Amino acid sequence: MARILALHTHDVRFPTSRTLDGSDAMNPDPDYSASYVRVVTDADDGLSGHGFVFTIGRGNDVQVAAVRALEPHLVGRDVDATLADLGGVWRELVHDSQLRWLGPEKGVMHMAIGAVVNALWDLRAKREGKPLWRLLASLSPEELVDLVDFRYLTDALTRDEALALLRAAEPGRAERERDLLEHGYPAYTTTPGWLGYDDDKLRRLCRRAVADGFTQIKLKVGANLDDDLRRLRIAREVCGPDVRIAVDANQRWDVAEAVRWIKALEPFDIAWIEEPTSPDDLLAHAAIAKAVAPIPVAGGEHIANRVLFKQYLQADAIRVLQLDATRVAGVNENIAILLLAAKFGVPVCPHAGGVGLCEAVQHLAMFDYVAVSGSVEGRVVEFVDHLHEHFVDPVVVRDGRYVAPTTPGASTEMFPESLREYAHG
Amino acid sequence: MARILALHTHDVRFPTSRTLDGSDAMNPDPDYSASYVRVVTDADDGLSGHGFVFTIGRGNDVQVAAVRALEPHLVGRDVDATLADLGGVWRELVHDSQLRWLGPEKGVMHMAIGAVVNALWDLRAKREGKPLWRLLASLSPEELVDLVDFRYLTDALTRDEALALLRAAEPGRAERERDLLEHGYPAYTTTPGWLGYDDDKLRRLCRRAVADGFTQIKLKVGANLDDDLRRLRIAREVCGPDVRIAVDANQRWDVAEAVRWIKALEPFDIAWIEEPTSPDDLLAHAAIAKAVAPIPVAGGEHIANRVLFKQYLQADAIRVLQLDATRVAGVNENIAILLLAAKFGVPVCPHAGGVGLCEAVQHLAMFDYVAVSGSVEGRVVEFVDHLHEHFVDPVVVRDGRYVAPTTPGASTEMFPESLREYAHG
Repeated sequence: MARILALHTHDVRFPTSRTLDGSDAMNPDPDYSASYVRVVTDADDGLSGHGFVFTIGRGNDVQVAAVRALEPHLVGRDVDATLADLGGVWRELVHDSQLRWLGPEKGVMHMAIGAVVNALWDLRAKREGKPLWRLLASLSPEELVDLVDFRYLTDALTRDEALALLRAAEPGRAERERDLLEHGYPAYTTTPGWLGYDDDKLRRLCRRAVADGFTQIKLKVGANLDDDLRRLRIAREVCGPDVRIAVDANQRWDVAEAVRWIKALEPFDIAWIEEPTSPDDLLAHAAIAKAVAPIPVAGGEHIANRVLFKQYLQADAIRVLQLDATRVAGVNENIAILLLAAKFGVPVCPHAGGVGLCEAVQHLAMFDYVAVSGSVEGRVVEFVDHLHEHFVDPVVVRDGRYVAPTTPGASTEMFPESLREYAHG
Repeated sequence: MARILALHTHDVRFPTSRTLDGSDAMNPDPDYSASYVRVVTDADDGLSGHGFVFTIGRGNDVQVAAVRALEPHLVGRDVDATLADLGGVWRELVHDSQLRWLGPEKGVMHMAIGAVVNALWDLRAKREGKPLWRLLASLSPEELVDLVDFRYLTDALTRDEALALLRAAEPGRAERERDLLEHGYPAYTTTPGWLGYDDDKLRRLCRRAVADGFTQIKLKVGANLDDDLRRLRIAREVCGPDVRIAVDANQRWDVAEAVRWIKALEPFDIAWIEEPTSPDDLLAHAAIAKAVAPIPVAGGEHIANRVLFKQYLQADAIRVLQLDATRVAGVNENIAILLLAAKFGVPVCPHAGGVGLCEAVQHLAMFDYVAVSGSVEGRVVEFVDHLHEHFVDPVVVRDGRYVAPTTPGASTEMFPESLREYAHG
């Protein structure tokens, strides 16, 4: 019988602030980082599970300490039994009554659980010889709902309703898998849009985005209205009228300012306005969404858990749901979020970029298409073209679409040399 | 010129799970703990500032690591300038763009900022020779609003509205101070109500609460309805009809179950129902509040920040606001919350107990009475009678009222022997 031996952690930081990659109105100089964890077993197969929390620099050591704090929950466990009951493991970690106090279900401790849960899914997918999206899409509706904790969700979505949704999406699974393997999943690019880039770089990168086949780009806004108007004019000129242009304020505004600012940007035909205000401010998002309609409000990369996502949907506060692979407690909680989105008919357009977020989140979007929503209509996964070279199975984006991964695992494994070279401290 | 030299941290844990003190429906066996910090300077006065985050055991090391991560922000700073601009310091810590990613403004990193901010207030109060509540109550309305960050609040409360509230409460400050010094501030006790206590202990402790002059007690509920009904019957019998009995479900229910359960408890004349569901579930609280009216819903000990409190008030989801001294980012954020409560006319009945929460929060309630709400009507501060012996200036509760502290500082300093004796690991 194989057992889990250890959680090996790494504090990995890339000096991205030097080039202002990733700069926006709230995050002027991020150093993209990962609190990285490897679940090591004594199994003969030599496989390990890899996961991480994405952070932007300072505090990555605190995040690593939180991942380490979970080691006693995992070490010594039977590998097969653990991987066969990831719903149970999730509940045990999230509902540890003492650790729970540190959130509950939010922030550093919750994200640490996400890293470990995602690492266990990576291990399971490798052991089963499937890429994560296909592993998830091969599970029965019953197996899938067993992965989800419906506590605090039942006023919007019960287990039975989730089962019915999944059963309704069973016909056509095989066909949609083939479609993904042939055509991939639609992507959009944020590469041109960072606030720290000058107009020439913006123009050049917009041109390249169109040449590369992207039909949507995204620009950061919210620091200065005149700059935003000038940059949107440039982007619209270069991209032409048929490319969708989304904008992202990264939580910069209060309600009144958000409404004024967004209305000023309206003439440029905005695909969506992302994170206009605090990710905790459900009611403000709802007020803004109503005031700026029909421009859809998007959000999710900082929404802390499924309970908040549920309310964003109940209050019609977002029309584009941007789940993130490492903000919540891993694959299980993201399945809950995908089910909620399907229930409310809201498209999921995952947040990515950072370190390895594209690699991780593509699996969730593809699983959603095959087994949950059954649709790619109005759905795109964010793509940012940096730091992929550190991953063993990096994303491939071709003609503006994510190529479906075929390598077993969750695509979350980094090269040992990268972990070493960018080790912090 | 004096400078800040260091943040000394301590991982302090008390083995409270042995006696089931603090046991409730979600926290069956807490080990009350503190992530304790001392701000040390090179000033001649020999004073240091003390603060902490209350946790319930496992993960206290992660919380300590988060406090440590703030040391580079503080070390080397001019003590006078720092203490003279605690509004500026608060903004610098909370809006550190890299650390912010770990919340934002919630969980481990946010509470760590609270510990440091509270320690700085303790230091300032000691240097000015005043107990914290009197220091705060001596500040002008302008000085008070400068301590508050109105970002994300302006749709409910602007700086000007806050100023007007504080100015309206200026007349009578001196009289209310005298009143506090003479009569103290009303308390209620949770000591009888822990779930782990048997019926005899419940009966004995209820009797003692009444004999000690308390006019309100609180019982934990939510694990088993029959047990709750039996325990409420005992408490009501022992206490008589005139003592208020509040109940606390510690987030145990979903909406439908909460409504059913609370209606079953209604015959016992419930003073309030506390935390019926997830502290992130604003809309569920609003739905429950509407369904169980006129029983007021209470909450706040796990509400992560001022943005969420704002929405609870906007949505009429709580009628009793239970701020906590160490859940949010310290004194400054709690001033924002007191101002919001005053704006909406909702009484503040702070959460306490734990380690040192009574000591810390009494100052906020007394400040509220003198300078913000100007009232003690419908207001009580929680009291739990354990672990006070570890504090240099412990709370004194007499005839069911907190005696107003007169020792300079925030009452947050523990004895060095306690820090040593209960040091973890």
